[in-house]
Amino acid sequence: MRGEADERLARVVLSRIGEPGDPRLTDLVHELGAATVLGGLLDQAAAGELAADLRDRLASVDPGRELESAARRGLRFVVPGDDEWPEGLDALALAPHLHERGGVPVGLWCRGPLRVDEAVARSVAVVGSRSATTYGAAVATDIAAVLAREDWTVVSGAAFGIDQAAHRGSLAARGPTVAVLACGADRAYPTAHRAMIDYVADVGLVVSEAAPGAAPTRIRFLARNRLIAALARGTVVVEAAVRSGALNTASWTQGLGRVVMGVPGPVTSAPSAGVHQMVRARDALLVTCGEEVLEAVSPAGSFALAEPRAPEAARDRLTARERQVLDAVPLVRGADARSVGRTAGLSLARTQEALLVLHRAGLVEHGLGRWRVRDGDHELPGLDAPAGPDEPSSLR
Amino acid sequence: MRGEADERLARVVLSRIGEPGDPRLTDLVHELGAATVLGGLLDQAAAGELAADLRDRLASVDPGRELESAARRGLRFVVPGDDEWPEGLDALALAPHLHERGGVPVGLWCRGPLRVDEAVARSVAVVGSRSATTYGAAVATDIAAVLAREDWTVVSGAAFGIDQAAHRGSLAARGPTVAVLACGADRAYPTAHRAMIDYVADVGLVVSEAAPGAAPTRIRFLARNRLIAALARGTVVVEAAVRSGALNTASWTQGLGRVVMGVPGPVTSAPSAGVHQMVRARDALLVTCGEEVLEAVSPAGSFALAEPRAPEAARDRLTARERQVLDAVPLVRGADARSVGRTAGLSLARTQEALLVLHRAGLVEHGLGRWRVRDGDHELPGLDAPAGPDEPSSLR
Repeated sequence: MRGEADERLARVVLSRIGEPGDPRLTDLVHELGAATVLGGLLDQAAAGELAADLRDRLASVDPGRELESAARRGLRFVVPGDDEWPEGLDALALAPHLHERGGVPVGLWCRGPLRVDEAVARSVAVVGSRSATTYGAAVATDIAAVLAREDWTVVSGAAFGIDQAAHRGSLAARGPTVAVLACGADRAYPTAHRAMIDYVADVGLVVSEAAPGAAPTRIRFLARNRLIAALARGTVVVEAAVRSGALNTASWTQGLGRVVMGVPGPVTSAPSAGVHQMVRARDALLVTCGEEVLEAVSPAGSFALAEPRAPEAARDRLTARERQVLDAVPLVRGADARSVGRTAGLSLARTQEALLVLHRAGLVEHGLGRWRVRDGDHELPGLDAPAGPDEPSSLR
Repeated sequence: MRGEADERLARVVLSRIGEPGDPRLTDLVHELGAATVLGGLLDQAAAGELAADLRDRLASVDPGRELESAARRGLRFVVPGDDEWPEGLDALALAPHLHERGGVPVGLWCRGPLRVDEAVARSVAVVGSRSATTYGAAVATDIAAVLAREDWTVVSGAAFGIDQAAHRGSLAARGPTVAVLACGADRAYPTAHRAMIDYVADVGLVVSEAAPGAAPTRIRFLARNRLIAALARGTVVVEAAVRSGALNTASWTQGLGRVVMGVPGPVTSAPSAGVHQMVRARDALLVTCGEEVLEAVSPAGSFALAEPRAPEAARDRLTARERQVLDAVPLVRGADARSVGRTAGLSLARTQEALLVLHRAGLVEHGLGRWRVRDGDHELPGLDAPAGPDEPSSLR
């Protein structure tokens, strides 16, 4: 037990002195354990670049006091081997580094009542542009609410725009939500989101790889994005301009071999351009609603998605022959039954029978012995779907 | 030459008495030639279903008079073997039938100054919902205009909504445009589009498989859709509700092994649902502009598409080290140079050098010996793109 406690305290020290996601540290710790790495650093003979970088920071760190001080602020430190350690993070050991960040975090600072492993067991990252449109924010809220209703956790970054909409959609539906921060889990960034972040900590979970009190820096956002990707089963990007940070989270997801999803938008909307680029490149699956997200992240066949269908039209209730005759009735000027029969390839008698049914159904009209489609010019049946309910849809 | 003239006249007769795209007729004529098929039909001993269907219509047809009458209305009849016969249609011989329509048309009735083969040699079908949104119509117009400027022909169906927008976009940019009708090429459907269709016939081409005077019926729209698909190199669907007729054109395109493209829209817009479904099913390539359409239909590499890029940001002009330091500067409360250097993993001297450059560039501010990102809370650099111009974009 002594070794385990040492290992935890060593991880506290490394969390305090190292940079989140610095692969020189994370990779070494994943290989050798934190106690060993720390011992090596304390050895004044160690001459590596990392050792030089870190040694002078070591003096000031008292891991026991760190943990006490964190606990006073409602924070706990979760490390590999703990019951609540989320397995998903271990996959980072094998995922490619991005922008010189990567690897399994030495630990997670957590604030909130949920167990990390349980909270993320069924979870989806919902991320996107900070300068979201009303449209994007509404879609993110809807998707998060659908996930919440199915008891799936929404993981996001608490940023302006899509992140905020995603957390709010989940919270409003009383769903579990996890905010992953680039600063310390005791802080709030953006500062305007302090109330929301505190609410997430009250009912969900606020986590960070950075030590308590750590400031948000750009490089920490890049490291943070990999945690969002690694904690969730897949990532939905709702709006993302070209070169948006949300695409960085998508890259991490892809590197982890998990599903990247993208919500399309108007091609005239810059915040959707990055998503469209991903879908075009087949780097992301197009999704349009929470149900499609659930289908993509659930084991095959376990979430049944109803194919979108048009409402049943009057013609769906016709027999095949009646439809055949209807399809042969002119849309504008009328034609006599014989001519309709020729177009349909049916005898006059059968054509007349069908025309009577169609007339009773209000689908055709006649006058002076000529038949035409009722409201043909408006109903425009020519471009309606050719398939009835018993026929395959046109693209299948 | 006699045989050729006979063949043409036989095709006129079959065009008049047969239904467009009736595969019992088109497949036979493609195999045996029209003169042979017609001869067989005229043989009173022929007892097939098709013969019985057609024989009683034969008496009234005089192909010579048909051609004269058509010529008076500005129509010509183009058949396989003619110089201007578009090769693209021959692919219909091998494409699967859809909704009991299919095969190579026995001929094309054409109205307009363009040669059919030349007009469609570089052409794209732009189709979609008749109940288009303002958004969809604007995008269709834009795409058609881009195609026109590159001297590509827009093929469409002259219907309300997207079709109309596509023809207009092409016409307004003085591009070649081809309208394929379900009724006779001398008629106009929808009737409200008579002026536009006549304008297309003045400067472009109006074509139909149906004989002059033929009424538009639903079944003829299904047959017509296959010609739109077969004349063009690929099909763009701009808006299409689930079960929309535009999806029928997309199915024909797919059956011909040509490229189907779809323009996304808001997921909240029903007229985009059919397009999203196609893209999700990987039945269509997502496109967002005319340039992407041209890239998809051009031989590989012959149309260079610029990757969408965000405008150059101030950080793009920094050296790698300066960016490294900038990324380590806190966004909210400041930090001293030593602390920034630790985060960046650089010596104090190098950090200070870089901070001076960043300060001159207006990217960081300092006071009381502490540095922070200028407007950090607003600029929100954490989620901006990590890549500079010399680095790969985040998803590649």
